[in-house]
Amino acid sequence: METSIQKNYVVGIDIGGTNTVIGIVDQQGNIMETSSVKTGEYARVEDYVEAVCDVLLLLIKAYGGTEKFRGIGIGAPNGNYYRGTIEEAPNLPWKGVIHLAQMFKERTGIPAALTNDANAAALGEMAYGATRGMKDFIMITLGTGVGSGIVVNGQMLYGHDGFAGELGHVCVDRSPEARVCGCGRKGCLEAYCSATGVARTAREILSMTNEDSLLRELPSEQITSKEVYDAAIKGDKIAIEIFRRTGEILGRSIADFIAFSSPEAIVLFGGLTKAGDFIMKPIQDALDSNIMPIFKGKAQLLVSKLKDADAAVLGASTLGWEA
Amino acid sequence: METSIQKNYVVGIDIGGTNTVIGIVDQQGNIMETSSVKTGEYARVEDYVEAVCDVLLLLIKAYGGTEKFRGIGIGAPNGNYYRGTIEEAPNLPWKGVIHLAQMFKERTGIPAALTNDANAAALGEMAYGATRGMKDFIMITLGTGVGSGIVVNGQMLYGHDGFAGELGHVCVDRSPEARVCGCGRKGCLEAYCSATGVARTAREILSMTNEDSLLRELPSEQITSKEVYDAAIKGDKIAIEIFRRTGEILGRSIADFIAFSSPEAIVLFGGLTKAGDFIMKPIQDALDSNIMPIFKGKAQLLVSKLKDADAAVLGASTLGWEA
Repeated sequence: METSIQKNYVVGIDIGGTNTVIGIVDQQGNIMETSSVKTGEYARVEDYVEAVCDVLLLLIKAYGGTEKFRGIGIGAPNGNYYRGTIEEAPNLPWKGVIHLAQMFKERTGIPAALTNDANAAALGEMAYGATRGMKDFIMITLGTGVGSGIVVNGQMLYGHDGFAGELGHVCVDRSPEARVCGCGRKGCLEAYCSATGVARTAREILSMTNEDSLLRELPSEQITSKEVYDAAIKGDKIAIEIFRRTGEILGRSIADFIAFSSPEAIVLFGGLTKAGDFIMKPIQDALDSNIMPIFKGKAQLLVSKLKDADAAVLGASTLGWEA
Repeated sequence: METSIQKNYVVGIDIGGTNTVIGIVDQQGNIMETSSVKTGEYARVEDYVEAVCDVLLLLIKAYGGTEKFRGIGIGAPNGNYYRGTIEEAPNLPWKGVIHLAQMFKERTGIPAALTNDANAAALGEMAYGATRGMKDFIMITLGTGVGSGIVVNGQMLYGHDGFAGELGHVCVDRSPEARVCGCGRKGCLEAYCSATGVARTAREILSMTNEDSLLRELPSEQITSKEVYDAAIKGDKIAIEIFRRTGEILGRSIADFIAFSSPEAIVLFGGLTKAGDFIMKPIQDALDSNIMPIFKGKAQLLVSKLKDADAAVLGASTLGWEA
């Protein structure tokens, strides 16, 4: 006879603009099973929660029922850990302030916690990835946007209002020619080092020279770091230059981030990191040339060790253990 | 008969390039008495510690002897809290790594802790000043250099190596024309918003126009925020423009700092703040125009409430309670 029920599992939910991935995770960080729901199909958040919970409750049943689950962790754009809310997320269908953690808790009876997607990635990396055991590091996610999760003294840095760590929106160009960012401001890191930033750099360089490039075969809107990489490994000079400029901007910014929190490591995550040395070397060079002498050679530049598909769900799931 | 001796006092020591100020502080944060020693007169750190301790032990005796003292807190340029060291401080006579906290402890028998001067100022502000009770704020010291102390989750942010919070050395100008900073790099905030930065801005503006200015009566090397303020209150347009440019650069940088740690307040300390609205308004304007929408109107911009003469000793003394 069981005297106490072991809570063996948590749920990790990664909410993206297109898909929501729901995963069951065990105490060793194994993703036992995942399922997904199309985020964009639900104009009303109530219908969305209903649809996710229908899927989720089936998974939970298959793993022994709600008593076996310690908590639900959710990673979402513009997620606020303190309030368990998503607030004014530009890429989600629901506007205003959505009390999503509370809604999941009410529907499932399982405690739920929520944070933003980059913070979730940092938590996953700390629990299962390249920064295991580290107490001070910065995770930078290089995707459609540029996000970040900052860990200090072993704790996620949420700040006074829960929105700390928006390093994609520090200004890297204060000149009048600075690029306009999706946030409405000018010169943000995200406008240069995100997927769209790379495409813009490609467009700029291609328009300023007549040099041959494999990238001229593509509509510039379709250029992502993947296409640039494919060209770069064939020796395409313009592709190599795109990565160099992107890496230089990022490396200089990382030098500034280190002056802020003096982390043990900077971990990069996302599509851009697949470019390997084409991007990592310019980042490291710019970092080395621009870092304050007192910090020289101290912070390691790392690439995430989590599989892309797993990272978001794993990261979100770590919140489930504390929920 | 006393059964246990109350530890009523701490020592606060503020080490500057010119003077070292030693203060006795009680549990309410009253500075009971101070004394000082000329830092620059001691080429050997052993002689310096001896001289400071001669003064200090007399003070301690006058306040009931070492049993009455809980600890010694030291604020010093390039101070490292983790190791109790001063490391490669450019403005002090002793090179290399100096284990100063340990030296004071050995000489006095009282536990000693050390941190950098801007961190000490932040600790003082948190205990006795404008950020009392706040758990997330950033102190920016505007003096000969620009320093910072960052508090997150109610804790001083030391980072992996103890040197976190060098916000005077984030890059505010990546252009080839960026100013060279005292740290050897280019474009640092300190090169624009320190006392020397203000003098450089004055020199630049004065050389680019023929407009009359009271500041032309001074050798430009002697121009500090005090002289610019004196001219500004007389309506001197160039003086007002110097503050505007300085404030704009600082305000834009503060917008970036907020994206990092989302603090409840930014506290400014030092001579430049004496310029009042001439500097504070441009800072606030640049902050409001450049801050990410999600952070708009959240962080207060404050001026230190500690008296200049007291702040460093008081700040350092707070470390004495935990030493």
